[in-house]
Parts: sequence; structure tokens; C-alpha cells
Amino acid sequence: MSELQLVLDQLQEGQDEALDRLFSFIRVKSISTDPAYKNDCVTAANMACDFLQRAGFETEVVPTTGHPMVLGHYRSQGNRQAPHLLFYGHYDVQPVDPVDEWSRPPFEPSLVDDDKNGTIIHGRGSSDDKGQLLTFVEAARAWHEVTGDLPVNVTVLLEGEEECGSPSLDGFLKERAQDLKADFALICDTLQWDKDTPAITAMLRGLASIEVCVTGPNRDLHSGMYGGPAVNPLQVLSKGLAALHDETGRVLVPGFYDGVIEPDKSLIDQWSRSDFDEGAFLSDIGLDKAHGEMDCSVLEQLWCRPTLEINGMWGGYIGPGHKTVIPSKAHAKLSLRLVAGQKPDLILSELQDHLTKACGDDVKVEFSDPHGSSAVAFDLSKPHMDVARRVLKEEFGKDPILLGCGGSIPIVDVFERQLGLDCLLVGFALNDDCIHAPDEKYNVSSFQKGTRAFARMIADFGRVE
Amino acid sequence: MSELQLVLDQLQEGQDEALDRLFSFIRVKSISTDPAYKNDCVTAANMACDFLQRAGFETEVVPTTGHPMVLGHYRSQGNRQAPHLLFYGHYDVQPVDPVDEWSRPPFEPSLVDDDKNGTIIHGRGSSDDKGQLLTFVEAARAWHEVTGDLPVNVTVLLEGEEECGSPSLDGFLKERAQDLKADFALICDTLQWDKDTPAITAMLRGLASIEVCVTGPNRDLHSGMYGGPAVNPLQVLSKGLAALHDETGRVLVPGFYDGVIEPDKSLIDQWSRSDFDEGAFLSDIGLDKAHGEMDCSVLEQLWCRPTLEINGMWGGYIGPGHKTVIPSKAHAKLSLRLVAGQKPDLILSELQDHLTKACGDDVKVEFSDPHGSSAVAFDLSKPHMDVARRVLKEEFGKDPILLGCGGSIPIVDVFERQLGLDCLLVGFALNDDCIHAPDEKYNVSSFQKGTRAFARMIADFGRVE
Repeated sequence: MSELQLVLDQLQEGQDEALDRLFSFIRVKSISTDPAYKNDCVTAANMACDFLQRAGFETEVVPTTGHPMVLGHYRSQGNRQAPHLLFYGHYDVQPVDPVDEWSRPPFEPSLVDDDKNGTIIHGRGSSDDKGQLLTFVEAARAWHEVTGDLPVNVTVLLEGEEECGSPSLDGFLKERAQDLKADFALICDTLQWDKDTPAITAMLRGLASIEVCVTGPNRDLHSGMYGGPAVNPLQVLSKGLAALHDETGRVLVPGFYDGVIEPDKSLIDQWSRSDFDEGAFLSDIGLDKAHGEMDCSVLEQLWCRPTLEINGMWGGYIGPGHKTVIPSKAHAKLSLRLVAGQKPDLILSELQDHLTKACGDDVKVEFSDPHGSSAVAFDLSKPHMDVARRVLKEEFGKDPILLGCGGSIPIVDVFERQLGLDCLLVGFALNDDCIHAPDEKYNVSSFQKGTRAFARMIADFGRVE
Repeated sequence: MSELQLVLDQLQEGQDEALDRLFSFIRVKSISTDPAYKNDCVTAANMACDFLQRAGFETEVVPTTGHPMVLGHYRSQGNRQAPHLLFYGHYDVQPVDPVDEWSRPPFEPSLVDDDKNGTIIHGRGSSDDKGQLLTFVEAARAWHEVTGDLPVNVTVLLEGEEECGSPSLDGFLKERAQDLKADFALICDTLQWDKDTPAITAMLRGLASIEVCVTGPNRDLHSGMYGGPAVNPLQVLSKGLAALHDETGRVLVPGFYDGVIEPDKSLIDQWSRSDFDEGAFLSDIGLDKAHGEMDCSVLEQLWCRPTLEINGMWGGYIGPGHKTVIPSKAHAKLSLRLVAGQKPDLILSELQDHLTKACGDDVKVEFSDPHGSSAVAFDLSKPHMDVARRVLKEEFGKDPILLGCGGSIPIVDVFERQLGLDCLLVGFALNDDCIHAPDEKYNVSSFQKGTRAFARMIADFGRVE
């Protein structure tokens, strides 16, 4: 019998104890954003550290200006030349408000039978990210218990501030870069396709943002005394913003689509063959039809097409009742979701030119607060990507879907930029896990099949050249 | 010597006493909007009442739920069949903040030499409206002192809540409509053309307003997770609002200009011959050029052309920093300045249709809080209008300019609607009087020539058929 089979058997036998560990982890109210739970965050860090120690890791709880980092190292004894992977997860959780909307207490985890999902683990953090990070730690533990070793070198980094903007992360990474050297990073904080189908996140859109202010008259004016000859900056800004998209949903900023790298056709095909239900997706948010680029499917629009959005707009009188003012200024906050090949700085500059022209000569158009981060398209030809695709298929009996992700995932950007690491995003959460919401859950099948998949990956990562 | 000449001589002789009365009136801090000055308002009402009594009026100080009304009646003894005029003014004043910006104390009136205006009366209320209302009362007083009679029947109504929205006015007018019967109303709360040229306000624009709310998704969305397929109501509303005007500044709402009554060509000619300085008007508000209808002068745009303005707009995230939200709702407050011949209700309905169409089918467009009041174009052929034009020319040696007014004047609407009275708007304030602002002033020449002009009007109104 192979070592892997022994490990998988061990996982089978130990599944109640693994659930017990997850339950005790969920009971710790590690709400990172609320100072009232500072001690709970320390408790959670120490517990995670204990889990790692019992899985054979050398561990360290590293204090920061905020909540501590948990660091674990496992150097393979039998395979010292094995690749080195850096696993990332986070032990902090979101607040539980509105707590009245939970059907059970958020920090008293329980197993519940669910018609759609089978048995689920109910509780805050069951999925995001205590359940997901333990999915990996339990796989390593089983390897350690069965073989007294891991076939791959592993560093584990567990953060306690992911849900509150990671204020300590940059400093920590700078200080401890030496301790985080690895060949690639494995992040378990993303989705499966559905409860029976695994997924790898293959691309993340980038994000650029900027604020615009249009100034017309030098002061707010009475519309009776000045209405007519006085230019109204709200009217001008509306015209400018209306000139950002054409009738087919395409962005009209010149150069906006230059350099866009289309994803491999096989991905588009996989998405179109998938059972994604556009109608259900749209009706969930109260819409009848998709509004973006007419010639793209919803998944393409979300995952591999860039967008330009107005996130906020204001000017003039916005209180109750009416005030006949012509405001001096009008404002908007704009952001762009970018895809591979688009350069954030260049596009922000093109946007400024376009909007300034569209607003015309009668006003002053000023921009502030520009930010930009590029899209990430993971290289699907990397060996660790091959391993992930193969073992997920072995475990689930289905090819994993290669997902896009419409948003950015800050840790990916940080790892790529600060540590120069390729990232592999494999997660077992589901869209209906209610992360950040009442009644968060994690499917027991996600926990168990996920752990088995990671046990397989640990074996195969050890054989990567 | 004519009675009128005796009255004008009397005004000349009594001008120091008249200024003394105005000074004592200004010293009363009758700030109607601030409850701390409630007693001062009563003091000012009693003082105004005393002025009227000494001018031969039967008077009454009428309590209201707010500040009292002052009512005075003078029935002509020698000319019982004479026309009856209702004079309106207000004894309350604006607050004096920011008081640091006054060069002299606001409630310690003084005469100051001014390079441009000659001698001026400095102090809060000197122009708006204590000075202007006394301009009339002093004329009546001189007639009474010289002849023991007035050649016309006069009712005077002095309000104490004009600067705080006239909350008691409607109720008072309903209750005392019998006491306010008259042939026409004379309101002294408006402008001369310049310090040497008189004016009659010949038209007021109307006002309609409405609020619009555009709903896209059923909740605020994360732009990473939904950006692309999800319709953004801020984008849609911007497109809708951009469709309200064409490139020449004309309003695109179908039917908007239907029925517009152009003012008499002689008025347009008078305005174009006047020394109104478009460049100075625009540069004062920081603009290089007029933005309204291209084929209309600034004065036409302000006085006799309708407008459609966005007074406020908001939606999404408008705090500091950035939030990548696609909001569920976007809002705007719109108002229209209307001219003679436009029907507010009809136009609001046409606007709703137009904006709904322009926003398209992918969103819900809802309107709320509609209000409308028609424009007023005074009938220049009425006898009291003839009298005013003639005597202003006699006194100033120049034809009065027949002004438009871009805003509405609430008391006109109330008098026309509730009392069915034609209004005659003759005032002697100047654009640089700083009403509602620090260093309010009234030219001594406005006070004296205005009083003489009213003395002439009182004579001639008595001869109107």
C-alpha cells in the first residue's frame, strides 16, 4: 500500500478528531477588526500554532503591532531537495452582525443536515478561513502522523488581520522575507466550482481607481439669479461620465483595450460548457439581463473583460427637500477592473484625457488619489499548476474548472510583488457558504475531500522538478 | 404751488428726521430666524406701527404663531372713490454672521462716504427691507403732514417673517383677507437698475422641482464580483441627465418650449441697449463665457428663458478613500426655471417621460416630491404700471428699465394666488447693497429719490381710473 493511501486512510479514521479541532478553532471569537476581541485573536493564533506543532512543524507566534502572525516550518527529512511551498491562510474572522439573523449561535459550531449540501459545519469562520486553512493543516498532520515526515518542504503563514486590511503584513514580510523563501505559494481562501466540482483560480482582475472633481462657477450659485448662463458642473460631469461607454457596453476611453491578453480559448470553452446559470446569477441581484459588453458572456465579463465603473458621485444639495443651487463643484469616484495586458498607470492617464475632453472647456477638471494594480493571469504551464489539476481530478473525478476572479485578492498581489512568488489558488469554499454573512457554513464534503486533495498534492508537489 | 410740490419740499426739509427714524429702526435686532431675537421682532413691529400711526394710519399689530404682522389703513378723505393699493414690506432682517466681516457694527447704523455710491446708510436691514419699506412710509407721511390726507386709499402690510420662510403668512391672509382688499399690490423689496436708473420688475420666472431615483441591482454590489454584467445606476443616471440638454444649451425634453410667451420685443431691445456688462457678470462667478442657450443674451437667459438644472446628485460611496461598490441606487434633484406660458405640471410630466426613456429599460426610474409654480409676467398695460413708469422717469430723468427676475418672489405668488391681486414691483435697492451679507448698505440717494418717487406715485395712483 502506498504512503499516500495510508495517509488517506488515516484521514478517514481521524475525521471526527479533525472536526473536533475545527470546532474548537471556530469557538474562538477571533474578530480582528474589533479591539474587544484582541485576546481572542491571540488565543486563535496560539491554537493554530498548537495545531501546527502537533503536525510536526517548528512554530513561532510572531507579535506585530496588531494581531500576531503564526509561522510554521516543516523541512522534509527524506526529501531535502524537494520543492518548498509557502501555505497561506488566516485565522481571523468577520464580525457577526446582524447576529439576530443567525439561525444558530455563530461561535457554537454544529453539524447540520442540509438538503442541498449534505452535512454542513455551521459557524463563523467555518469556511472563511478557519475551515479552509485547517483543510491543508489536517492533510499535513496526516502525512506527519503516518510517515513521520512530509515529502515536500512547507512553510505555513497564518495571518490574523486579513479581515481588517492586513495593516501589519507589509512590515512583517519585509522583516521576515528570509523565513518565507519558497518556490511557490499555495493559498486556500477561494472557491470550488460547485459542491461536486473542484476549481483553481487562474486569473484575477486588477484594479485602478481615481477621483475626479469638476469645478464650474467659483462658488455655489442661486439658480434663479444665475441659472441659464452659469455652467452647472453636475450637468457637465454627467455628460463626461455618459461618454465613458458606448451603447454596446464597451468603454470609449481611447487605448483602453490596447494590449488586452485574451485568455486561452480552452478556458472560455470550459466556462461556456459549465453549468453556470446566467439567469439565476442576474435574478439574484434583481436584474433581467447583463449590462456589460454585449458580445461577452457573463463569466467573460466578470473574469476576463475590463470594466470602468462609477463607484460614487456627488455634488450640490443632497439633503431632504430642495435647494435651488448651482453647485461650484461636482465629484465622482471611478474605478476600473483590469485584465492581463492592461497597464494601470497608462489607462488612468488615458481616462483622465478622455474625461477632461468630454467635459469641455467651460469647467476645470481635476483628478486625485490615483491607484492601480495590474491583473494577474497565472501561468497554467507551471508544474505546481499541473499537479493541482491532476490531483483535483483524481479526488473529485472531474477536471477542475479554471476560474477567473473578478476582484483582486490582496495577498496574491503582496506575494507576487514583495516575495516574487507564483501563487496557486485552490479553495473548497462554495458560493452559498455565506462568508461575511449570517449562517456561515462549510460543507463537510469540502473539508474532507479538500483535505484528501491536499494530501495528494503534498505527495505530488514533492515530485515536482 | 401743487400739493405734490409741497410734499416734495416737505421731504427735502424733513430728510434728517427721516434718516433718524430709519436709524432707530435699524438699531432693533429683528433677526426673525433666531428665537433669541423674538422680543426684538416685537419691538420692530411696534416701531413700524408707530411710524404708520404718525403718518395718519389706523394701525394694528396682529399676533401670529410667530412674529407679529403690522397692518395699517389709510382711507382717503378727499378721494373716497380713489383706487386702493396694498403696500407690502417686511421689518425682519437676516442674521449678521459672519459678524467679523462687517467693517462697522451691523446694528449701529451710520452714514459713510462711498466713492461709487455717494453717501450710504450702513447697517443690517438698511436696504432689505427696513430702508425700502420706510421709503414708502416716509412718502405717505409727507403727504399726511402736508395735506392731512392721502389722495389714494392705502393698506400697509408689514411682515416679520420674510427672512425665515413666512410660516404665518398663509394663515394670516386667509383670516384677514377682508382687511387686505385692494386694487393692486405695491411691493418694495426689489432693485433699481443702477444708482442713477430706476427699474420696475416686469416678470418673474416660475419654478418646478422634482427628485429622481434610479434603481439598478437590488442591493449594493462589489464591483469585482459583479462589475461588468451588473448595471450601474450612476452610469445610467449620468446618461439620462446628459440627455437633458443639446450642445447649444437647449433643453431636449419634448414639449419643453411649447407655449413659451416671448416678452415684448421692446423689453429685449431695452435690455440689449442697457449697459449690462456680460463679461463682468460672468467673471464675478469665475466664468469666461455664458453656458446657456447660445442664441440668447445673458439677460434673456436669466429673465425670459426657461432652464433645467441639476441641483444635487448622489449615489454610491462618497466618503474619503475608495470603495469599489456598484450602488443599488442613484439620485438627483432637478429644478426648472419656467417662463410665461409654461405649465409646471405638464412640463414635470414631460420631463419624467423623457428621463425615464433616456435611462432605458434596465433600471427602475422613480420620481418624487414634485412642486411647481408658474412664471409671472406682469401686464405692462395696466394703469398702475403706466403711473410707475411715468413718475420714475420724472424723478430720475430716465425711463425705468423693465427688469426680469430669474428667481421667484414668494409674496408675489401668494398675493396673486390667495388675494387675486396684480402686483407692482418697484424697489430702490442696488446689486452692491450686500443684502443677506456683511456690510449691508442703502444709498441715501435711493432712500431720498425713492421716497420722492413714491410721493409722486401716491399722487398719480389717486388719479387712476
